[in-house]
Amino acid sequence: MSHQIITELEKRHTVKHYDASKHISAADLAIIYEAMRLSPSSINSQPWKFIVIESDEAKQRFHDTFANKFQFNQKHAKAASHTILFAHKTHYARADYENVINVDIQTGRTKPENKDQSFGAFAFVDMNTDEQGNNAAWTKSQTYIALGNTMNVLARLGIDSTPMEGVDHELISELFPELEGYQCDVALAMGYNDADQDYNAALPKSRLAIKDIVTAL
Amino acid sequence: MSHQIITELEKRHTVKHYDASKHISAADLAIIYEAMRLSPSSINSQPWKFIVIESDEAKQRFHDTFANKFQFNQKHAKAASHTILFAHKTHYARADYENVINVDIQTGRTKPENKDQSFGAFAFVDMNTDEQGNNAAWTKSQTYIALGNTMNVLARLGIDSTPMEGVDHELISELFPELEGYQCDVALAMGYNDADQDYNAALPKSRLAIKDIVTAL
Repeated sequence: MSHQIITELEKRHTVKHYDASKHISAADLAIIYEAMRLSPSSINSQPWKFIVIESDEAKQRFHDTFANKFQFNQKHAKAASHTILFAHKTHYARADYENVINVDIQTGRTKPENKDQSFGAFAFVDMNTDEQGNNAAWTKSQTYIALGNTMNVLARLGIDSTPMEGVDHELISELFPELEGYQCDVALAMGYNDADQDYNAALPKSRLAIKDIVTAL
Repeated sequence: MSHQIITELEKRHTVKHYDASKHISAADLAIIYEAMRLSPSSINSQPWKFIVIESDEAKQRFHDTFANKFQFNQKHAKAASHTILFAHKTHYARADYENVINVDIQTGRTKPENKDQSFGAFAFVDMNTDEQGNNAAWTKSQTYIALGNTMNVLARLGIDSTPMEGVDHELISELFPELEGYQCDVALAMGYNDADQDYNAALPKSRLAIKDIVTAL
């Protein structure tokens, strides 16, 4: 199939080795952040926080989170241009949704007098919340929508990336107090690969056949 | 910000009313399916099944799954051009991953003699599997990557959509035996909106501010 969308998605792959000398431009970063911001989520809840590892100090801190586990991903911490920690709120509450509704009111999407009524959608949160107020499974799913959206955008911008579930969420929480209330189960390293050492770039794309995953009824 | 990616994502919205006379072309459907197929997932597990509601018979069946719950989404079942049921495998097992590895071997990505070694990545599944073999939370997250990827692609193709967590997964499993072993917690209606009645198209886009969700360190 010949279409620009498919060409880009076929080219994208999980980078195994970055060229540490290459950096994502400020213009591209702005597009990436804005695209992340525009990601859809259930009831527009946006139960996420995106921590961007950019400075040498932050890269060192992220590097240190691989002390106990997943050392095979550690080298990306310093070699990738940027890494985004995709974190989900573990106890998304009415106060969080109120922030969303307040923006709706600011933009003119919702009339101030309809504020109470707007909380009706919060029933979707209640359905996914346990007795301790934990709804991390639901907020995590929403955050993976943003991840899928972001990886598509990177492919389109010609920026390489490495999605990593191989991250230590406990050590990340410890070393990144900025994440209080949020949990990071997945991170996305981004930058430009070292073509000579990124063996995965040359390997053929491999996916299950359409007939095995898509059934039209 | 002026960039084609952002323009498209700003325009996309959750459709509240479809024009039932308009249908997605076969050429666009082929791109959508192929883009879904190319979605990334942890260890390339692809623990998903995409059931496409296309025929009148399937639309009636999907319509009937709203008998008990979420009636506000029922009208999309027949009015949308197509709806995709995004389903995740609840008990993803070694045999499923063997299918992936077999494709890797067919494509030349993996040498036949390295087949056993390829199962090393399955440790990520084990980490996310309970004693009953259930790993639905993990496979569901992967499926939301595909959802995020697909919504981005639809925005780019100028096709409208409605993501719906308001679906009755129990009744879907009952009326769609094709989903055996998989669970559908989210569906994506697709088509073209009825501009006069889709009130959401005209409302301003509303998202939290960049400063409230992105922190660069």
